[in-house]
Amino acid sequence: MNRAIVLLSGGLDSATCFLIAKKEAEEVFALSFDYAQRHKVELERARSLAETYGAAAHRVVKLDLPARESSALTDLSRDVPRHALGAEAIPITYVPARNTLFLSNAVAWGEAIGAGDLYIGANSIDYSGYPDCRPEFLESFERTANLGTKSGVEGEMTFRIHAPLLRMTKGEIVSKARDLGLNFALTSSCYDPAPDGEPCRSCDSCLLREIGFREAGLRDPLHRSPNHRE
Amino acid sequence: MNRAIVLLSGGLDSATCFLIAKKEAEEVFALSFDYAQRHKVELERARSLAETYGAAAHRVVKLDLPARESSALTDLSRDVPRHALGAEAIPITYVPARNTLFLSNAVAWGEAIGAGDLYIGANSIDYSGYPDCRPEFLESFERTANLGTKSGVEGEMTFRIHAPLLRMTKGEIVSKARDLGLNFALTSSCYDPAPDGEPCRSCDSCLLREIGFREAGLRDPLHRSPNHRE
Repeated sequence: MNRAIVLLSGGLDSATCFLIAKKEAEEVFALSFDYAQRHKVELERARSLAETYGAAAHRVVKLDLPARESSALTDLSRDVPRHALGAEAIPITYVPARNTLFLSNAVAWGEAIGAGDLYIGANSIDYSGYPDCRPEFLESFERTANLGTKSGVEGEMTFRIHAPLLRMTKGEIVSKARDLGLNFALTSSCYDPAPDGEPCRSCDSCLLREIGFREAGLRDPLHRSPNHRE
Repeated sequence: MNRAIVLLSGGLDSATCFLIAKKEAEEVFALSFDYAQRHKVELERARSLAETYGAAAHRVVKLDLPARESSALTDLSRDVPRHALGAEAIPITYVPARNTLFLSNAVAWGEAIGAGDLYIGANSIDYSGYPDCRPEFLESFERTANLGTKSGVEGEMTFRIHAPLLRMTKGEIVSKARDLGLNFALTSSCYDPAPDGEPCRSCDSCLLREIGFREAGLRDPLHRSPNHRE
């Protein structure tokens, strides 16, 4: 039985990743995190996606982050930067050790349910500059996971970190998602959406998504009006 | 400012580790985890230890473990093995990816408060056979932590995993703790203590502790009566 776990944030990349895993594994489990992120609408989207595309189970793990004030994604008193893509090496939306925490939880769950294939929608081409999206981090994490678990040591299961979007441009990701039949309206990418979930269209994540749709020659169904919100 | 974080379970090893860190760092922060372990008395002991020995701060992070039924330490319907030390390669008290999760949380907090020195009381000599206490795991985790964080990438801080007890026998740990002035009565090692905190004296952890005191030629103050409980 080939089981996989997909880190499913509810964004475009992780949703695409989920559909790729569905083609490669017999059973796909979805793992999301509630870390008091300001863009909580993504958790609702993750639930819809897991249900729509047939996750074997969907877990939402509550994460008790040590220092919410250190990132604009978790500190509501800080503004999410607008039109600032590429302005800083590592932007203030960086959440300390987020993917390390996410993947560690995936390893713990994977070991318990016998799922060695862990999927993450990390991307190192069109990305925000987060250190924990780089291939060298993911390779090192994979090694660590196999050294630090019973299944890794006893050889009954090998953890493999799959990052199928790692070297794709945003345009390629959007095209891939379309080919796999993703309903883009079920996803949410914005770091700072309106209460009704409408994207701001100016944070890094919205700008990257826009680049992707433009490159793929597609229209984003989340853009309900031709006028920007601001 | 040299800041350290110590994983403080409330047991003998982590308490010793804390006192070692106090000699090596200017400020020492204590990190404990509430993962619905059956031996919760250790969290009370961790609080006493942090207060008694001057932790700069003490955090107790709630961990939402994916599969509590997979370990006898978190599944109350399973019995903790008695007098079984060394009987199995990896005993059923193993908690999937526990140290990976613990250390990941330490990295996240460490990055936020500028503490790069992370102390863990892992031991690879007299230990229960857990894969995530081995040196190769700890080395790999350290590398991963530096690759997956902003401070690691920008070079402003380097994470170092310190496991000062790694190659010590239990007897050497007890002697070291005595030399550092540890009040042993403040610690708790038992996996399955009585409601009043009295150790069972037959689980792996109690047996290892007993070996340590015997080797060091000391009496364990936790043994209040000359007769065993069972």
